Amino acid sequence: MDARVFQSYSARAEGMKNPIAKELLALMEEKQSNLSVAVDLTKKSEILELVDKIGPYVCVIKTHIDVVEDFDQDMVEKLVALGKKHRFLIFEDRKFADIGNTVKLQYASGVYKIASWAHITNCHTVPGEGIIQGLKEVGLPLGRGLLLLAEMSSKGSLATGSYTEKTLEWFEKHTDFCFGFIAGRRFPNLQSDYITMSPGIGLDVKGDGLGQQYRTPEEVIVNCGSDIIIVGRGVYGAGRNPVVEAKRYREAGWKAYQQRLSQH
Amino acid sequence: MDARVFQSYSARAEGMKNPIAKELLALMEEKQSNLSVAVDLTKKSEILELVDKIGPYVCVIKTHIDVVEDFDQDMVEKLVALGKKHRFLIFEDRKFADIGNTVKLQYASGVYKIASWAHITNCHTVPGEGIIQGLKEVGLPLGRGLLLLAEMSSKGSLATGSYTEKTLEWFEKHTDFCFGFIAGRRFPNLQSDYITMSPGIGLDVKGDGLGQQYRTPEEVIVNCGSDIIIVGRGVYGAGRNPVVEAKRYREAGWKAYQQRLSQH
Repeated sequence: MDARVFQSYSARAEGMKNPIAKELLALMEEKQSNLSVAVDLTKKSEILELVDKIGPYVCVIKTHIDVVEDFDQDMVEKLVALGKKHRFLIFEDRKFADIGNTVKLQYASGVYKIASWAHITNCHTVPGEGIIQGLKEVGLPLGRGLLLLAEMSSKGSLATGSYTEKTLEWFEKHTDFCFGFIAGRRFPNLQSDYITMSPGIGLDVKGDGLGQQYRTPEEVIVNCGSDIIIVGRGVYGAGRNPVVEAKRYREAGWKAYQQRLSQH
Repeated sequence: MDARVFQSYSARAEGMKNPIAKELLALMEEKQSNLSVAVDLTKKSEILELVDKIGPYVCVIKTHIDVVEDFDQDMVEKLVALGKKHRFLIFEDRKFADIGNTVKLQYASGVYKIASWAHITNCHTVPGEGIIQGLKEVGLPLGRGLLLLAEMSSKGSLATGSYTEKTLEWFEKHTDFCFGFIAGRRFPNLQSDYITMSPGIGLDVKGDGLGQQYRTPEEVIVNCGSDIIIVGRGVYGAGRNPVVEAKRYREAGWKAYQQRLSQH
């Protein structure tokens, strides 16, 4: 496997062009956390309450801002304030998927003004390289970073083969803005170092009946070379104590990382 | 080419399972319009003013609701009212692109509650068939319809080959909810009839520098078997009179349709 994954997160920060990637890797080492929690709740108060509880244990809070019923500017301000209090970055999992001219507007404008508060966002590459260029025109001047989707963990995903290869090729051309992937594994043979964030992580369940499939932290970090585990309902689903679970997943993720480091 | 495209829109309504598709085809014949205008403005008042002007000439108004700076519930109500006044359907070009469980929330909930007002929406199939299933669980009970993206007109699009083929295969399994495609051409060999809506249509320009490429109504309707032309900045761009342009594109689109009918 790519030798860079056997270096510490903080050592790898130097090899990154994007400022958000450097900040993220330093922060992960500092907090000893490679855990990102996907907060898919729909009420502002519930989201802010949850984030305040789990903030100390995560490196990234992942949002789907467009499922929040009572979203307002105040919510963004409070979320940003929690990010400063607990030292985490905010990743709006928007999965942009339109042509360059449209995503520029979707990223910068509208009710959400994602670029104004989300350190990180992501996009599909299905529209072609123009989507990266469009997002970059908005995000780069603001010091933001972009993740690409080169594969998906859901059943029957079409991001495979030449789709994945082309995405990796475009990635290499935009490492000033793109700093990693949402993917289940480390991709081989990339010239630039990058961060891999893996969704679909669970310690207790296997699937949700709508195509989502779960894997363990050890599997993605140790075996597949990923860097950050993304956990959703595993942390705050019905009957779970979010602080207990966030600690548990953080520990599982960090242990997997240390196991990887110890291999070389 | 698929013989069904040489039938009239109204005759094809009978072959459709989805109620929105039936309504749309009847409405197109009645208004003699296969023109959809992509309204990508960012101010509520400008959007409503434009839609009120061009409403009589279009069959579908296509929105990107998440670029509207001052979106509110009143805007939706006024848009729906204009749709009833001028007889057009509303298509929110959301390009959903996440796993089933997430798109259900994005479609039904949040600030926009897309499913509550958009007759039509669309999705990418890159996450797998689960995205269609998820959206269907929300949209079908509301009598909505879904378009799939099986190809894109933007430069370097990755929706080609097996990506396109798999999308067509899933389409056939969900014709109660899916009624067509956003695509530049009619796909051959589909068992079910369906509606093709083609973006990237322009009579005067060739591209926008961010990967968008333009084609003429005749090219997509006559040569490529598409059914509806989607025109954006060609209708309301700087220096244009939207009513004049909407009439011009409607005429060009309808003429192309009649030319196609006359071939058989």
